[in-house]
Amino acid sequence: MRFEIEKKGPGLSRAGRIVTPHGAIETPAFIVVGTKAAVRGLTVEMLRDAGVQSVLANTYHLYMQPGDTKIRDMGGLHKVMNWEGPTWTDSGGFQVFSLGAGYGKNVGKVLKDLPNIPLLKERDEEEVKPRLVEIDHDGAAFKSPLDGTVHFITPERSIEMQHNIGADLIFAFDECTSPSEPRAYQREALDRTHRWGKRSLDYHLSKDNSKRQALFGIVQGGRYEDLRKESARAIGEMAFDGFGIGGSFDKEDLHTAVRWVNEILPEGKPRHLLGIGEPEDLFLGVEQGCDTFDCVAPTRLGRHGTVYTKDGKMHIGNAKFQEDLRPIEEDCPCYACKSYSRAYISHLYKSREMLGPMLCSIHNVHFIVGLVKKMRSSLLEGNFDEYKRSFLARYKTQG
Amino acid sequence: MRFEIEKKGPGLSRAGRIVTPHGAIETPAFIVVGTKAAVRGLTVEMLRDAGVQSVLANTYHLYMQPGDTKIRDMGGLHKVMNWEGPTWTDSGGFQVFSLGAGYGKNVGKVLKDLPNIPLLKERDEEEVKPRLVEIDHDGAAFKSPLDGTVHFITPERSIEMQHNIGADLIFAFDECTSPSEPRAYQREALDRTHRWGKRSLDYHLSKDNSKRQALFGIVQGGRYEDLRKESARAIGEMAFDGFGIGGSFDKEDLHTAVRWVNEILPEGKPRHLLGIGEPEDLFLGVEQGCDTFDCVAPTRLGRHGTVYTKDGKMHIGNAKFQEDLRPIEEDCPCYACKSYSRAYISHLYKSREMLGPMLCSIHNVHFIVGLVKKMRSSLLEGNFDEYKRSFLARYKTQG
Repeated sequence: MRFEIEKKGPGLSRAGRIVTPHGAIETPAFIVVGTKAAVRGLTVEMLRDAGVQSVLANTYHLYMQPGDTKIRDMGGLHKVMNWEGPTWTDSGGFQVFSLGAGYGKNVGKVLKDLPNIPLLKERDEEEVKPRLVEIDHDGAAFKSPLDGTVHFITPERSIEMQHNIGADLIFAFDECTSPSEPRAYQREALDRTHRWGKRSLDYHLSKDNSKRQALFGIVQGGRYEDLRKESARAIGEMAFDGFGIGGSFDKEDLHTAVRWVNEILPEGKPRHLLGIGEPEDLFLGVEQGCDTFDCVAPTRLGRHGTVYTKDGKMHIGNAKFQEDLRPIEEDCPCYACKSYSRAYISHLYKSREMLGPMLCSIHNVHFIVGLVKKMRSSLLEGNFDEYKRSFLARYKTQG
Repeated sequence: MRFEIEKKGPGLSRAGRIVTPHGAIETPAFIVVGTKAAVRGLTVEMLRDAGVQSVLANTYHLYMQPGDTKIRDMGGLHKVMNWEGPTWTDSGGFQVFSLGAGYGKNVGKVLKDLPNIPLLKERDEEEVKPRLVEIDHDGAAFKSPLDGTVHFITPERSIEMQHNIGADLIFAFDECTSPSEPRAYQREALDRTHRWGKRSLDYHLSKDNSKRQALFGIVQGGRYEDLRKESARAIGEMAFDGFGIGGSFDKEDLHTAVRWVNEILPEGKPRHLLGIGEPEDLFLGVEQGCDTFDCVAPTRLGRHGTVYTKDGKMHIGNAKFQEDLRPIEEDCPCYACKSYSRAYISHLYKSREMLGPMLCSIHNVHFIVGLVKKMRSSLLEGNFDEYKRSFLARYKTQG
């Protein structure tokens, strides 16, 4: 992997290129999420038509189904999903800690963080240790929500899985904490994330895969300035190819937390802001020096009938669209807008026709990918601030 | 509409062309069902790539949502769904009688024929008249399964709805009986279908739409030879542009019932076999002189993971496909087979990813449309019997 900065803009912003064995990503760029090696409702041709440069799959989900070794045996992620462009996988940490279930004596996550896992109810709540139990274990144990089997993921295993899956850009195993956790817990989890980052890197560099896959370390630290800065220094000093910034943010946090981190991280390596995808946040992320972003929002919202427009989000199921013969957006060149009216898509939504979610997802992916692409153009043309101002002035009026 | 017979084959078979204002359908042809003005999971580009010539939408469903006048106001079926080729609508009769609920004093369908309509349970069963009550009404009343509102469809209203929707080829309003109904009921329903056929035709010819939309009459008569022949004579004498053959058939009935009818129907007009789509039945239908067919099977089966192959149907969820790197069919040029392995599609199916149903439906549509296309080629080349024999010899081995 190679990273080139083409031009710098206001704040910490920059336009650049991440060059991978499967082609370049022109940054800033929005990476579309294809959780289980498929972007929900879109073929790879639809992705390309919508301007998508790169896809991110989730290691946790692919480990659970069909299994990381199955993906390897099927020829790796690119071949399996027939996507020839650059790909990413996350480390599985986020899903293990937010979807998976803390299990056994060494794991201190509490039940309230683990919703929607009916299997958990089968075991004695006594087994769940309070959160502040000392954690000195190797990784994270969790119980599969699919079949109740117990799984244990270490930093080494996370990287091994990501080597098996074979994406161009992969992430170190980290602990993604809830912003509601107290400082003491954030402190402890941060040390773990740093130790796990080092172990992820050591394991990665000991394998041949490190010649064709690039490893990004992950900065955590919640909403605490000192922890964020400490994390940026600790992770930034390690020989990662790039960096991810993790954690849940409030609208207010995002701006400052990202700046604290990116002022410290080495300038010459790419920075990915994990799980961020709303227009306002993307502008902030770019301004504060992030190069890439991923989020399920465009497809998740699209599946449920919410579409992005320059005037804000709107729900296609709204009665006023039933006779509206305009496309979702008048001047949008996406497949959905070129070919179909709001009235028809509204009909599809009400009729629960699969084509409805498909068209809304196509539009949303085109919208968000295109938005970040326009941020890039505005950086290259030297008018990022102006573009941001004019977009947000209009977007906020209804958003 | 114009119909030309290009070449005759064994039995009553023929290859021909139905020319409509939106292009020609080369027959025999399989027409894909797009119930609510959308083929489930396929864009129109995917339909074209899969070799689809023509799409049939359901009047009943479009009347219920978004409404036939809405489709008209949106520019008509072709414009709404962005499909430039020939289109069909059925009359709504089949759905009214099989999905809708007999309602009020003049309708004699009994509850056992009306499953899955929870709203029916709300009314007093006393209201439901026994089946042999004299029916001398104008049409069919039914209660919407969506909101409980009462609707009344007459032959004139069915044609008016189909004029509003605007398909190239439309059908007369008929009563589609269950094959389990006794002869006395079939007799009575048949008279109604003939009267409704005449009224459908008179109404159609009184409107300008008859210049651009072609009306097909529907032959019924259950599994009774005399009723089928009487129906073919009665409907065949009317000035319809073509004919549909309706009714539910057993594998054994189909062959004879279709032959009885097609030996009587005027040779120079096209014949559509309603709701038939399995390979064995398509061969029988073509052999007995049918030109077109429609069925939801390719998309319905595909959505649930069943795919057609030359060796018979198979279920992609079967454990043996999890590591099978071959495409669904080795020599199939469809989008799914060109790009993806059984293992990947199996993974998508198990993961409930939308792309799974999409790929299986694309393959099935390509398979069934292609099968009838090959029947046409074999008729033109004079080797239909040979093609039928070789296909069915292999297909049956696992089917």
